[in-house]
Amino acid sequence: MRILVAPDSFKGSLTSAELCRIIRNGMEKVLEAEVIEMPISDGGEGFLESICSIHPYQLEFVNAKDPLGRWIQAEMAIDYEKKTAYIEMAKSTGLTLVNEKERNPYQSFSYGVGNLILHGLDKGCRTFVIGLGGSATNDAGVGMLSELGVVFRDESGKPMTIELLEDIRKIARLDLKQVDTRLFEAEFLLATDVINPLCGENGATYIFGPQKGIKKNDLYNIDRIIFHYGTVLERQFQKELLTQEGAGAAGGMPASFLALFQTKICRGIEILIETSKLKEILPSINLVITGEGKLDQQTYNGKVIKGISDFVKPSSIPVVAICGKIELSRKELKELGLTAAFSICKGPISLEESMKEARGFVEELAENMAELIKVSM
Amino acid sequence: MRILVAPDSFKGSLTSAELCRIIRNGMEKVLEAEVIEMPISDGGEGFLESICSIHPYQLEFVNAKDPLGRWIQAEMAIDYEKKTAYIEMAKSTGLTLVNEKERNPYQSFSYGVGNLILHGLDKGCRTFVIGLGGSATNDAGVGMLSELGVVFRDESGKPMTIELLEDIRKIARLDLKQVDTRLFEAEFLLATDVINPLCGENGATYIFGPQKGIKKNDLYNIDRIIFHYGTVLERQFQKELLTQEGAGAAGGMPASFLALFQTKICRGIEILIETSKLKEILPSINLVITGEGKLDQQTYNGKVIKGISDFVKPSSIPVVAICGKIELSRKELKELGLTAAFSICKGPISLEESMKEARGFVEELAENMAELIKVSM
Repeated sequence: MRILVAPDSFKGSLTSAELCRIIRNGMEKVLEAEVIEMPISDGGEGFLESICSIHPYQLEFVNAKDPLGRWIQAEMAIDYEKKTAYIEMAKSTGLTLVNEKERNPYQSFSYGVGNLILHGLDKGCRTFVIGLGGSATNDAGVGMLSELGVVFRDESGKPMTIELLEDIRKIARLDLKQVDTRLFEAEFLLATDVINPLCGENGATYIFGPQKGIKKNDLYNIDRIIFHYGTVLERQFQKELLTQEGAGAAGGMPASFLALFQTKICRGIEILIETSKLKEILPSINLVITGEGKLDQQTYNGKVIKGISDFVKPSSIPVVAICGKIELSRKELKELGLTAAFSICKGPISLEESMKEARGFVEELAENMAELIKVSM
Repeated sequence: MRILVAPDSFKGSLTSAELCRIIRNGMEKVLEAEVIEMPISDGGEGFLESICSIHPYQLEFVNAKDPLGRWIQAEMAIDYEKKTAYIEMAKSTGLTLVNEKERNPYQSFSYGVGNLILHGLDKGCRTFVIGLGGSATNDAGVGMLSELGVVFRDESGKPMTIELLEDIRKIARLDLKQVDTRLFEAEFLLATDVINPLCGENGATYIFGPQKGIKKNDLYNIDRIIFHYGTVLERQFQKELLTQEGAGAAGGMPASFLALFQTKICRGIEILIETSKLKEILPSINLVITGEGKLDQQTYNGKVIKGISDFVKPSSIPVVAICGKIELSRKELKELGLTAAFSICKGPISLEESMKEARGFVEELAENMAELIKVSM
């Protein structure tokens, strides 16, 4: 029997790679099965771990600026054969890199992503797979572009120093003369499950700004700054950006990518399917085990489980989910393409307790599930 | 595939017969399997339902006195072929027959059990299977014996009228002259999972009296009354009663049975195994599904699941439990003889909510389990 374990993370308690390991342990205690681990990430935290668990890439530590401009060492992975760089934005520009006291989205920029891209470029990479999410920034990629050599000029044509989000309002034009031309030959795949637009009520600032520390009273003002930047990009590069689905991911990063470079926005799961051998091995799989913290109506909208079940559906392989909480009925599970779903909870329990005990609960559930699979073998 | 569904009840939310039906429904929605229902009872409420769900006996409605001496219609079942009567004590003498205002253990007697036995006797029965539990009485069977024709005499030899528990203190001797002699040829099987003795700190009065309404201050006094009755029986019938395990069940009923008649105390599950075709069909079963509200350390001490797993163990058929709450580890499940256990809870939830939703949760879980069984078929 071959089992593919491909869960999302249980946010706040277990990463998808940890979940894979635990589920595998539980299964292997009971079943003589080959268990293949494939942790899934939506592009945010855990993206690199997920990529490296299915590929033998070595992690490289690269000097990069954190959101506040301080030099740190950030990890990235390179596939030298395919000249592809894997970058997780959260590693250089993540919210978790800045402690709560320092957290200042008004002065936070995505420089680090630029630094990592340049490193990949120097190592020969022409494809860049960039996991978006978990970012501390709301700069629509201005920090990244400045590291890549873009010079921002104001109405009078003078080069600007961008130190505050407020400064973006004065950008009138992007000067690309100093940008490494190899970047224009490169391909950028942005991994995100976010479908929000760059601006407006559903845009980056309004939806994700508050969790980064943008005050309620500033939302309108900052949204308009990003809107201004979007219109500057649209005008100069003749591309539709303000209506682009997903441009609001990670503080608006896709806007800068889409404007300047060959860019594609993909769901995290698509990237994994694309870059892994998943398609090849799928026909030999007997069971897929996926999972996420909460299985609910949102799962229909591009969360990991939906991606997995959509991918597996044509091959009719059963897909079973392990979850913290199941808010769907059996009918809804089936509509989603899931064969079955089990909660890790062993009885009435609080959310806190279930998150604290998640590791043990998942392993026990995996063992119990394996026993049931074994019954009819 | 043949599946035996043999759960205890989920006390307070689902009877064992209901559980059987729901689990069967869930299983049959998914699997092409023969599902055999065998609701298990410890002897208390649900005992008759349990017996009648595995045997085609018609229920008979019999005039019987309730705990306060009022005539009611109580159900019992008769196997005319085997001359066996099935009596659930709770049907005539149950706590639920007396509303809270009327509840008065000081004047409650087990008359009804006597009435039902006489009915069975008249119908030719010589074996009486009596489910003990859920009783409103603490009379050690005095009420029952008086209906069976026993005359209680005091020190002076005068026949007594027993109207209060207090009156039992004056009993000096039992006069059996008017007892139907056929009763002495009959065999009584008492079904109970209680192992408490008749008297003392672990006896009927102290342990089960309070839930029947005996006040804390009266416990000692009433325990001594029952002790007196026990010593009278021991002396007159030359049987060890005070040290007898299980004599404290159902307000001390077994004491009177053991003293006068051929009596055996059995666990509820033993009765079911004995009277059903369970032994015959077991070798053809592929999976046993059992269950109970809470799977915990107490489960080791004679609860239904323990009985089922002990019975099934020699045949190595997997036994899987469906529970409200699982308090045991995987290691403990195995020690108990269980292959696996699943909680009906779909995530963090309160006890109240989980009990309210039990019906739907059980069916969903059964379906999910069936899907997993199907995976490897």
